[in-house]
Amino acid sequence: MTFSISHLGPAGTYTEQAAMAYAEWWAAQTQQPLPTLKSFSSIAQTLFEVAEGHVDVAIAPVENSIEGSVTATLDTLWQVDNLRIRQAVILPIVHVLAAKTRDLSTLSTVCSHPQALGQCRGWLQANLPEAQLIPTSSTTESLKSVQGSIAAIASERAVQLYDLPILARSIQDYSDNCTRFLVVNRPESTIVIPKIAGPVYTSIAFSLMQNSPGVLVKILQIFAERQINLSRIESRPSKRSLGDYVFFIDAEVCHESQSFQSVLKLLVENTESLRILGSYSTLEITADSTLSSVASDR
Amino acid sequence: MTFSISHLGPAGTYTEQAAMAYAEWWAAQTQQPLPTLKSFSSIAQTLFEVAEGHVDVAIAPVENSIEGSVTATLDTLWQVDNLRIRQAVILPIVHVLAAKTRDLSTLSTVCSHPQALGQCRGWLQANLPEAQLIPTSSTTESLKSVQGSIAAIASERAVQLYDLPILARSIQDYSDNCTRFLVVNRPESTIVIPKIAGPVYTSIAFSLMQNSPGVLVKILQIFAERQINLSRIESRPSKRSLGDYVFFIDAEVCHESQSFQSVLKLLVENTESLRILGSYSTLEITADSTLSSVASDR
Repeated sequence: MTFSISHLGPAGTYTEQAAMAYAEWWAAQTQQPLPTLKSFSSIAQTLFEVAEGHVDVAIAPVENSIEGSVTATLDTLWQVDNLRIRQAVILPIVHVLAAKTRDLSTLSTVCSHPQALGQCRGWLQANLPEAQLIPTSSTTESLKSVQGSIAAIASERAVQLYDLPILARSIQDYSDNCTRFLVVNRPESTIVIPKIAGPVYTSIAFSLMQNSPGVLVKILQIFAERQINLSRIESRPSKRSLGDYVFFIDAEVCHESQSFQSVLKLLVENTESLRILGSYSTLEITADSTLSSVASDR
Repeated sequence: MTFSISHLGPAGTYTEQAAMAYAEWWAAQTQQPLPTLKSFSSIAQTLFEVAEGHVDVAIAPVENSIEGSVTATLDTLWQVDNLRIRQAVILPIVHVLAAKTRDLSTLSTVCSHPQALGQCRGWLQANLPEAQLIPTSSTTESLKSVQGSIAAIASERAVQLYDLPILARSIQDYSDNCTRFLVVNRPESTIVIPKIAGPVYTSIAFSLMQNSPGVLVKILQIFAERQINLSRIESRPSKRSLGDYVFFIDAEVCHESQSFQSVLKLLVENTESLRILGSYSTLEITADSTLSSVASDR
């Protein structure tokens, strides 16, 4: 039995690239046919489609090493309660500049997704200081605007799909630019997720009863006292009032372990609302698009 | 002697609205002429202009109650070391839909800044589920696209400036939608900042020597043990590698106080790099655009 994967479209986005690599890895591991890919125009929609049962699995970006959290993914995971994280996938990000000219000085405008524009901020300031930067809904979407003095930033694969010339390669400001994606499905899903080596993380999200700093310290101490490493802590507005937050924590522990069970009771007592988003390990996509498990905590 | 204030432009942005209200409040308090406003096309640029001495003061959005942190502001404050936060300003956000039609069903596209699109996500899904959402570099910028089936989301003032019809008012999903702005200048600046009542906050930012969760708990405990309230904690990627962060903390304490001095020594010992971003209190702009100090912690 095969299954469907939703991702941010159109064809050529980094999320599609992660989804394709994951689909191939899954098929090789399980000796099953390739999953089918379905693209949607927003990240929230890719997750809603899974929550509503129209698609089996979503692949959604959650964090980039330069631009930080993908807030649409975090907010949707908090809003919708029947989604579980099953795996993480890390993809290296290499941006190229697509343009129909061979002369940088003739460019007046550069279009791309705001995250990609942010990841190339230094290169743009050094090479195209006067250019107007226009945000688009995805990197691929920006390629539709390329003509005359208008350039776009996207992946090399997307630019090839759109059959456009590449004016500059690897224009991201930091060489260690990568994005972490989450593989998400419904709690009752029967799709086999192949086991991989490497540390297991559990993601949780919670709001606090009183918005007091002492309470957050208490939560972090619950983990610290049990020697459970936290690899990430992120806050998002609760959308109730300014200064009221939802916190997201990634802990290096499996939610089925004894030590997590002892933490869970204390978490429930000290939070207003608590969501266990899932336990998972991480696959890393290398430059040649092969996948490997991550041996150590990055 | 008057001074200049940089803000995100063009005319009609919420940042300009905050800058105008602040300028009026400042002039009334000091009995001095109105400061002059200068607009720039990106938030980072408004801060760079101050750091480089071309403008005296910047007003930059730092946090919205729905969409969260304004990452360009946090990243620039961390990057540039000669900026200090002198005051905070809270502005209520009320979005309107500008369109040249009186019939919602004829609209195919809605343009606005990604934060504004996010703040109206529910209204758009309920009223314009099929519309394509196009991000622009500011809310005001989106108004340039309004024609035929293309609508835009901006402030009522901006829509009036552009002389466009309003099709729907107050379309933000949460009534308690407000944005906090920072008033920033150089450390050596001699501009008088009028004192206001209400709690004083100090913002700090730091990176950690080892990216270990125990270290962050230790930092939070330094404050908790001295009964210093933290109103906010935010993480941003350090841009060195995935999983390596810079943390931003707002503490309810003045950096000149005895208790902060005792904290400072411990912070220096436990962080890799530490930046004291400034101490300030908060002005609140009410619906009729008058300013009041915030009496209690929100």
